[in-house]
Amino acid sequence: MDKNSTPWIQTVSLETPSLKDNTADAERLIQALRFRLKTPAIKIDLDLLKTLPTVLRRSRFNVRCVLFKEKQHWVLIGITDAEEASPVAGLAVDLGTTRVVLRLLDLATGATLAESAFDNPQEKIGPDILVRIHFAEKENGLNELNKQIVSGLNSAIEHLCESQKLEPHHIYTLTVAGNTTMTHLFMGLNPRWIIREPYIPVVNAPGVMKADALGLHVHPRARVLIFPNIGSYFGGDLIAGILFSEINKTSQTCILVDVGTNAEVVLGNKNWLIACAGAAGPALEGGVTRMGMTAGPGVIDQISLETDTLGFNIHTIDDLPPKGICGSGVIDLAARLFQAGMIDVRGKLVPAVCGPRVKKINGQLHLVVVPAEGAGTGSDLTISQADLDSLIRSKAAMYTILETITASVGIAPQDLESFYVAGTFGSFINPASAITIGMLPDLPLDRYKPLGNSSLAGAALALQSDKYHDEIDQIRDRITYLELNVNQDFMNRFSAAKFLPHTNTNLFPSVKVF
Amino acid sequence: MDKNSTPWIQTVSLETPSLKDNTADAERLIQALRFRLKTPAIKIDLDLLKTLPTVLRRSRFNVRCVLFKEKQHWVLIGITDAEEASPVAGLAVDLGTTRVVLRLLDLATGATLAESAFDNPQEKIGPDILVRIHFAEKENGLNELNKQIVSGLNSAIEHLCESQKLEPHHIYTLTVAGNTTMTHLFMGLNPRWIIREPYIPVVNAPGVMKADALGLHVHPRARVLIFPNIGSYFGGDLIAGILFSEINKTSQTCILVDVGTNAEVVLGNKNWLIACAGAAGPALEGGVTRMGMTAGPGVIDQISLETDTLGFNIHTIDDLPPKGICGSGVIDLAARLFQAGMIDVRGKLVPAVCGPRVKKINGQLHLVVVPAEGAGTGSDLTISQADLDSLIRSKAAMYTILETITASVGIAPQDLESFYVAGTFGSFINPASAITIGMLPDLPLDRYKPLGNSSLAGAALALQSDKYHDEIDQIRDRITYLELNVNQDFMNRFSAAKFLPHTNTNLFPSVKVF
Repeated sequence: MDKNSTPWIQTVSLETPSLKDNTADAERLIQALRFRLKTPAIKIDLDLLKTLPTVLRRSRFNVRCVLFKEKQHWVLIGITDAEEASPVAGLAVDLGTTRVVLRLLDLATGATLAESAFDNPQEKIGPDILVRIHFAEKENGLNELNKQIVSGLNSAIEHLCESQKLEPHHIYTLTVAGNTTMTHLFMGLNPRWIIREPYIPVVNAPGVMKADALGLHVHPRARVLIFPNIGSYFGGDLIAGILFSEINKTSQTCILVDVGTNAEVVLGNKNWLIACAGAAGPALEGGVTRMGMTAGPGVIDQISLETDTLGFNIHTIDDLPPKGICGSGVIDLAARLFQAGMIDVRGKLVPAVCGPRVKKINGQLHLVVVPAEGAGTGSDLTISQADLDSLIRSKAAMYTILETITASVGIAPQDLESFYVAGTFGSFINPASAITIGMLPDLPLDRYKPLGNSSLAGAALALQSDKYHDEIDQIRDRITYLELNVNQDFMNRFSAAKFLPHTNTNLFPSVKVF
Repeated sequence: MDKNSTPWIQTVSLETPSLKDNTADAERLIQALRFRLKTPAIKIDLDLLKTLPTVLRRSRFNVRCVLFKEKQHWVLIGITDAEEASPVAGLAVDLGTTRVVLRLLDLATGATLAESAFDNPQEKIGPDILVRIHFAEKENGLNELNKQIVSGLNSAIEHLCESQKLEPHHIYTLTVAGNTTMTHLFMGLNPRWIIREPYIPVVNAPGVMKADALGLHVHPRARVLIFPNIGSYFGGDLIAGILFSEINKTSQTCILVDVGTNAEVVLGNKNWLIACAGAAGPALEGGVTRMGMTAGPGVIDQISLETDTLGFNIHTIDDLPPKGICGSGVIDLAARLFQAGMIDVRGKLVPAVCGPRVKKINGQLHLVVVPAEGAGTGSDLTISQADLDSLIRSKAAMYTILETITASVGIAPQDLESFYVAGTFGSFINPASAITIGMLPDLPLDRYKPLGNSSLAGAALALQSDKYHDEIDQIRDRITYLELNVNQDFMNRFSAAKFLPHTNTNLFPSVKVF
């Protein structure tokens, strides 16, 4: 492969100095690079200048340069003999509230070398952002949170490199995509105002920083691109997701939905982008996400129903005895229950249809999904009416957000050309089930496209070329953030969406009950 | 005075954040500044971002910002409450091989607060650049030279600030002009190749660096603009001198001559600049500068002659008993001796005219300038034939350089509109005397303009406004460096210039002998 196919690695032969051309070492190198990079704005750190004369002369002016682009200029990170074989790696980081995922890339080819993940060590302080922000306000709290995530990254980097027989100093560039709060905690920035009206981050576009200033143990001059945010509730992880989904380049209007700690939605095409986040109104609070447990071994992720016996066929992750049910499983279950008439259009259990499967526990109706004898827990695996009510609120919230954001540009959810679903939710959810309960619009199934970890994938893209850096800025600049006004209109839509699939069944022509 | 007359200090009132405008703190500040600075390319260091939310809210979003311009962007160095009264100072440094001069400025008004100077501590290693460069090649040698100059600067800064009741951290910006080698030693860059063919510096245009990376104890985020060089023999001190002289802006062609460790010459106008340095040929080596002692108390700087008695009227610095004679004094003396016929057109002493003033010491003729009884040293103060021969070579070299550089653009030295003479040499020299011996061309005396320490003055200008930064780059880019080829043409000119005032007396119509 052509050594110069990536902009980051440039192998150049300089004119040897002569009395006719007494240009200094630095400017001689910059002259050779400016044609490749199409700019003379190339910066060389002082500590690299100190070694430059020796490196140039030892290599007889044939050198391999590792570069990265900061906003207004390029920066030379490393320089070696042109024949140097040591690897040049980049690291993409998805900085999640719960889990942090790393992808190591070969910068010369863009190929993935390895991936790893670790639980965000800040979970010890608190599982959600709110608790952590309050903790950050305590004496030394922010410092501790910052140290936790940076140390976590450093040890993950060490192990990841070890597994590939690399050294951490072979990592020259990093890209980090996270929500606004995680990004602040990673940089050691005060997150206090993120959760207080009017919800102001310290910075929207941190740009490129030096890895050592961030406490990362990689190449001493490595640079870190930190994805920008639109505000407190729309972070760099979403920008990375948009970059990866390419909805900012399509002719037809598409949507990207990321259901993580919040539900975030971006609608758009090559001409415009509009975004909103599901934690914006009190009616939605905690709604979309309080559905079952996190996917993991032994967790039910798929359910079907024997229509004649009303018996469940369950699938668990790793085919282990079932011990719980995750979000996608709950949606599958609710869809089957609704189709079988076991719950009504309000999502209420119908004892007459469910028969002995319904039990009253602590005065509340429960449906036994897996009896004790078949469960991995040794006791009945049930779903309560309260769980179902919560699901109904969640799915109504989701659909209302989709209706609201599409209505804001004069289209209907049913007009969407592609429907990208990011995250683990997107990988596990069965769109047919989500349509059946009216959580997602009634689109042809092939329009639903799971994206996987789009935050990580977008971060990895930004390691490939500077054209993505510009695109990131363009995406950020083009997004209009739609504040979800919980007004009468919104509440009317929400009320209509609290039915299965919807009060207006014309919106869901494909949904059939048995 | 208008608080915003300098670009470096901007007092701005930001829109208070609201639900309608949730722009982050950093971008809110940048938005307010971008109109003032006419660019959105404003960078905020990570450690400043960490304090930003608190500073903005404590000041109710009315802040005083201290900024500086790096090449492609502006950088926010400090931010305080708009009402903050603490001083904002800048420091201009003339980084001389022999002496380092500092000028402290109030950045708000551009006014000079104080100046100080100290002997370059590297003199202990060696008085000239060559010795220091060889020393830099020893184990830890470069490090020691670097520490000496940086420590010297730090203690000078401390004392200078103390005298003004400032703290070193009130210094936000520095500008440093020095020759190419001194600039390298100050940055800790290997000067090895500066003195070896083909004479290549590590860097031509270091641009703006962080003061702490350079080891300077000033504001922790202070920035340092380091003047660029054209090559090993044409340093930032000269660029600073051109900036101050404004010869790069004149319609008429002017010349700037700086006689320091080397003799450097820049010729030009608003359309072009051409430069050369006097150390370029073996015939000139040490020639221009080996004239008498450094100016100081008790040193003869002016001499006139009683034409009837051939008695000298001497003037000494601080009117102390004479203990030596400096460059300008030697030129005065030689002019008087020539006019009185005491030396001939070759600069040889004429014993018949000098009479008892001439003595033979160690087989060489000496002229007694001040007899022992009048001298501060207790012994005769004399000038030897060898000293005079050396002066003749120096003046011939000087004139030959002027002839060569003017001839290279098709004009004669006599065509120059203004003749700027920089440095202490420029301040002390009597142009009429220099013309008499044919060292400087026979121009009307009012065309001779002493510039004083133009390196320091140029550095101080760069502390006033970013427009000077652009001008520095333009000057650097526009200069053509003329290699002084010591060919037959040059040697013919040199031979003709070794007479007093010249073999072609038509070039010096104003020179009269008694």
